[in-house]
Amino acid sequence: MSYTLEELQSLRSFYRNQLLENTVPFWFPRSFDREHGGFLLMRDADGSLIDDDKAVWIQGRATWLLATLYNTVEPRPEWLEGARLGYDFLNTHCFDSDGRMFFHVARDGRPIRKRRYFFSETFYVIAAAAYAKALAQAGDPASEAVAASARSAFGNCIRFASTPGLLPAKFTDTRPAIGIGTPMIMINTAQQLRDTIGDPRCDDWISTWIEQIQEKFVKDDIRCVMEQVAPDGSIIDHIDGRTLNPGHAIEGAWFILHEAMHRKDDQLKDLGCRMLDYMWERGWDQQHGGILYFRDVFGKPVQEYWQDMKFWWPHNETIIATLLAFLLTGDEKYARWHRMVHQYAYDHFLDQAHGEWFGYLHRDGRVAQTAKGNLFKGPFHLPRQEWYCLQLLDNYLKTHSVL
Amino acid sequence: MSYTLEELQSLRSFYRNQLLENTVPFWFPRSFDREHGGFLLMRDADGSLIDDDKAVWIQGRATWLLATLYNTVEPRPEWLEGARLGYDFLNTHCFDSDGRMFFHVARDGRPIRKRRYFFSETFYVIAAAAYAKALAQAGDPASEAVAASARSAFGNCIRFASTPGLLPAKFTDTRPAIGIGTPMIMINTAQQLRDTIGDPRCDDWISTWIEQIQEKFVKDDIRCVMEQVAPDGSIIDHIDGRTLNPGHAIEGAWFILHEAMHRKDDQLKDLGCRMLDYMWERGWDQQHGGILYFRDVFGKPVQEYWQDMKFWWPHNETIIATLLAFLLTGDEKYARWHRMVHQYAYDHFLDQAHGEWFGYLHRDGRVAQTAKGNLFKGPFHLPRQEWYCLQLLDNYLKTHSVL
Repeated sequence: MSYTLEELQSLRSFYRNQLLENTVPFWFPRSFDREHGGFLLMRDADGSLIDDDKAVWIQGRATWLLATLYNTVEPRPEWLEGARLGYDFLNTHCFDSDGRMFFHVARDGRPIRKRRYFFSETFYVIAAAAYAKALAQAGDPASEAVAASARSAFGNCIRFASTPGLLPAKFTDTRPAIGIGTPMIMINTAQQLRDTIGDPRCDDWISTWIEQIQEKFVKDDIRCVMEQVAPDGSIIDHIDGRTLNPGHAIEGAWFILHEAMHRKDDQLKDLGCRMLDYMWERGWDQQHGGILYFRDVFGKPVQEYWQDMKFWWPHNETIIATLLAFLLTGDEKYARWHRMVHQYAYDHFLDQAHGEWFGYLHRDGRVAQTAKGNLFKGPFHLPRQEWYCLQLLDNYLKTHSVL
Repeated sequence: MSYTLEELQSLRSFYRNQLLENTVPFWFPRSFDREHGGFLLMRDADGSLIDDDKAVWIQGRATWLLATLYNTVEPRPEWLEGARLGYDFLNTHCFDSDGRMFFHVARDGRPIRKRRYFFSETFYVIAAAAYAKALAQAGDPASEAVAASARSAFGNCIRFASTPGLLPAKFTDTRPAIGIGTPMIMINTAQQLRDTIGDPRCDDWISTWIEQIQEKFVKDDIRCVMEQVAPDGSIIDHIDGRTLNPGHAIEGAWFILHEAMHRKDDQLKDLGCRMLDYMWERGWDQQHGGILYFRDVFGKPVQEYWQDMKFWWPHNETIIATLLAFLLTGDEKYARWHRMVHQYAYDHFLDQAHGEWFGYLHRDGRVAQTAKGNLFKGPFHLPRQEWYCLQLLDNYLKTHSVL
């Protein structure tokens, strides 16, 4: 069953309403930390603070969100003020003396933990790029310097992503592996940079990283997207190497579908749809609905304890991917999948009492724990989904002369 | 309801039978790796191998188990052969050039991962100590050298445990914390060393580590044993600092009860019972039975995803602790608790089809995944529980002139 234009209009209103009347107001402005800068985001279901620490990933993501809402939805001064709080906190407190960023800091910015990954840095890039655009839009001359900082951080990320051994290793080199996370995050970072302040490096790098995903991680013969492989793309037949993360691969699928839309490239569209197809088949829970967290490529037991739980973010990514695939292809299968995952997610994750989504459900859909924010969850995947789907439907409906 | 001597005799037979007819035969001899040494322990429910990698903790623990069975149950040549396979593999492959040990190695011993903790080293100590005793019992002159190696490794562990900053840190020094894991593992390591080959350092160090637990981690005012605290013993009111691990604290309780029994020390008995009482109250699931994995000291949401699952090992530790507390105090409360946890555990974890226990249940008792062995589970907590309870009941029943 396909989607009619009327249904798409109603979906657009739904996402806009959820975003602006439910999700964003759960977080802001109460999370603005006007004393120390940044945001206080570790909150229980009712919004009460459970910890005043700050996760650097999420400080960057929240900054990106507020600046993006300002740039694309409407120029609310409150959103610009929030983006400034976040950007200034990141710059003042979240960089170590070696130029790399911390992972976890105290409320006042004192560092708690640094990790051996550069995700904090990629979220800094998209935060700074979106904030630079917002400043430009507001006529603030500081925009140039912020944009330069985004570009410089992007350069560092390219270096980290393309120089094996540059960051300290968690594993020895006995059994080298590459993860899909690096090309994925870099595609999205470059796309955000391009869509906000532009950068001549983006297109070529996006092509390179998509090629890497296609050549190394997408296995058409077994209809699978691997989470990690050996450097030559072969499957590492050990517990970790066999572990699939369907929601993550589906996020990668929509980054590629977004590129297909941007470039009007049918081969990329086909690649993104294949990735979505494979990981929907492997990740969708036929028994209870929803996207399972981990699967083993050969059906063996998965070691990570939460393997059959339902987390919020794979559902956000799958809602985007299925809607995008439907709008790009018109294939009613994707409309059907979008209905299924949208229905499951808003039925099970949305907190009817206090707004926003719970993060962690048991396989059967019961809420496992009530936090809305912690070191790993904050205002990102859900508002990004609602915002992205809103933008997508806006553009689609405008093109189809309905809006 | 207390336990009669007859019931204790029947429990003794049960544990002996499970140990020797069910648990140990699941693992051995099929897991002996006669080609590369060590053990192949990562197995699915039916015993089929899911990964031929080797977890160093578990190689050490399995070596300890086999040597201990040889020393205390009966001198089966197969068990001595297994202990030799394990000990030789540990020595040949599991030490890095700096004297510290790896965490995860390939089947042929090539290192995969080293961690910033010294648990591999503590399990080496108990493995070498038990194997040295077995060799002595077998009249093998190599015993002396193996004993010397155990003592030398114990010296390193004391150094790691008592020298802050000696091992690389995971966190900055912004918010210093100490964990109960270090004094706990050191108490048990010293007890095992003392019970096998003896060492003059053990008693004093055990007293020191018990004092540390009592002074820093046991909070009588709120009836709680903390998993981590600030160096002065104060509670760190952040997500990690508030997270309790009831099964782990109960394991610590029985290490202290074991010491109370060894020393005939009523104050230690009281300390161990208080720890057990507090964490039974916080960890026992009133709704479904079993021991919950994590709790928040103030009842806030726990961040670790598997917080309300039931893992096998907290049940092994609680079976030991409740039985030991009952035999030491005669308090029927502990007999009641022992019945409850024993019943829950053998009803839910024991695999009726293939033997041994599943490791991971959902809160409601359903099996979450079927592996019997992986990087974190192997032949240790379950056979140690069955073996320890067998020894305990043997001694008790002999003293009470029933056997």
